[in-house]
Amino acid sequence: MTYTIGIDVGGTKIYSILVDSSNNILAISKKKTKKGTPDFVLERTKGCLEDLLEKGGLQASDISGIGVGFPGPLDPDQGIVFEATNLPEWDHFPLAEKISEISNTPVFLDNDVNLGTLGEALAGAGHGAQNVIGIFLGTGVGGGIVLGGQLYRGTSGTAGEVGHMIIHHNGPKSPRNLRGTVEGLTSRTSVVNRIIKKIKKGDSSSLKSLVDKNEEIKSRPIAEAFRAGDKLVKGVLDETAEYVGVIVGSLGNLLAPDVVVLGGGLVEAVPEAILPKAREVAKTIVVPSAWKLMKIEAAELGDNSGAMGGAILARQKAALMS
Amino acid sequence: MTYTIGIDVGGTKIYSILVDSSNNILAISKKKTKKGTPDFVLERTKGCLEDLLEKGGLQASDISGIGVGFPGPLDPDQGIVFEATNLPEWDHFPLAEKISEISNTPVFLDNDVNLGTLGEALAGAGHGAQNVIGIFLGTGVGGGIVLGGQLYRGTSGTAGEVGHMIIHHNGPKSPRNLRGTVEGLTSRTSVVNRIIKKIKKGDSSSLKSLVDKNEEIKSRPIAEAFRAGDKLVKGVLDETAEYVGVIVGSLGNLLAPDVVVLGGGLVEAVPEAILPKAREVAKTIVVPSAWKLMKIEAAELGDNSGAMGGAILARQKAALMS
Repeated sequence: MTYTIGIDVGGTKIYSILVDSSNNILAISKKKTKKGTPDFVLERTKGCLEDLLEKGGLQASDISGIGVGFPGPLDPDQGIVFEATNLPEWDHFPLAEKISEISNTPVFLDNDVNLGTLGEALAGAGHGAQNVIGIFLGTGVGGGIVLGGQLYRGTSGTAGEVGHMIIHHNGPKSPRNLRGTVEGLTSRTSVVNRIIKKIKKGDSSSLKSLVDKNEEIKSRPIAEAFRAGDKLVKGVLDETAEYVGVIVGSLGNLLAPDVVVLGGGLVEAVPEAILPKAREVAKTIVVPSAWKLMKIEAAELGDNSGAMGGAILARQKAALMS
Repeated sequence: MTYTIGIDVGGTKIYSILVDSSNNILAISKKKTKKGTPDFVLERTKGCLEDLLEKGGLQASDISGIGVGFPGPLDPDQGIVFEATNLPEWDHFPLAEKISEISNTPVFLDNDVNLGTLGEALAGAGHGAQNVIGIFLGTGVGGGIVLGGQLYRGTSGTAGEVGHMIIHHNGPKSPRNLRGTVEGLTSRTSVVNRIIKKIKKGDSSSLKSLVDKNEEIKSRPIAEAFRAGDKLVKGVLDETAEYVGVIVGSLGNLLAPDVVVLGGGLVEAVPEAILPKAREVAKTIVVPSAWKLMKIEAAELGDNSGAMGGAILARQKAALMS
């Protein structure tokens, strides 16, 4: 039996799992980091690793590899983080090497969204599918591509930027001074902006009090409003689901995947507002022979997805090395 | 030295080449087919094969494999053509097996646009690049994907349908009852339709006489009008190049390729009307780290591209089998 560990390094917490070669999760360890600097992250990671081995009844030498997901630009081949928002200590930090030193185990680094896609593809909504696209709707829109059961990174290592694809030429203003991007039309940020705009125009909604108080609107109140029958929110989510269907349909034609996995905070909070409509729209776009073999599924692994992808990546890499 | 043969089966002609393992073309043989039915195609193919061996001074036993490109839905694994427009004789025709019988050589079948992309990637504009997207603007818009130096076909075998991706949600009417697809906005057909519409509205253009006579407008007169300074044609091509830039930019973000190859009749006729503007627009869309490593090039192989891709595919497959 091969055992690997996956670690999802977030801005405020470390989330780690110990996994066997059938992707069964044998142990979970989460730790908050007081600060997101490398020192704190490494100290907490060390704690997580000890935790996992103890819970799993294993020794360091039983672990074939560790896969680490990090949110931000990095070099997976070198295992180096290029930068992290507002934390200069991460500038070209050799995270894989440092974790390898404290664990005495080979460590592989990748983008957290890539690993989330890999986890969902092989151990989540993809159920072992070979060709999977992950689209994660949150503050922004992240994406990942798994082809032939392996992460596809492209020439620059940046492949999977579904959020920066354009689906509405000259459409609404989007991040990066673009117009009509997937991110600009389907992120939670864009959903909230459209809700606020309509409320400020005078349309009625149960979210008006939050808007009046200038509070951040997260996915949960959006989901609650939708479920309570809030028409404004329903309309905005419906439009969002249509956009999701457009990009999923386009990707179906381009990559003819087994599965497109939709995840992220917004989808997790209200899958029923996004999935059915997205499927309905995508069906009109994808050529029939590809549509017949293609599924559109909600992510299944929740908080585990990135760490699961890390554990799988570590197993794939360890197999190549042995 | 390995020798392979590539054959591009068109509706009215067979175009075949004999290639060595460095992709040097040793011989070319083209033959018109009176009818496009399997019988005529096989007879002419036999003639081409004899021609190539004679010109190249080789024997059938010197050939490691034959790669055949066909325009239409097919099963590359089984080597079966599913159908061809208006010719019922092609219904589930085992083309690879039949050519293998007359040549006594392993034969591999694929979509002609896929093979064109493979040819351009490894022996044309891609100059051996690993990750290449081909987009071909003609009557319709075809596309192909090469990843890691190999054709990517997707789960259904239909991957690469760039033409059916949507770049303008709810935009102009497009084929397949869609709106704002790449094909609907960048094919020669769409270019001609926009030119005709403007001329019928009363805008002046040197193409007016062709429109008045209700003649088909091919790529060449469009190119001539553009070069003669026809403002209407320049405007339409400029808009088309902008759309091309949008899809190339989106694909740059999704797949982070080495090269995007633009080909097909329209691009071959007036590359200078499409390439510079497409590059300019794509640059604004692609994330900088991917853009730095990515090129946008005009196809280089012309009529040879599909056959070259066939010869390369045959070499790749033969290497796997030996």
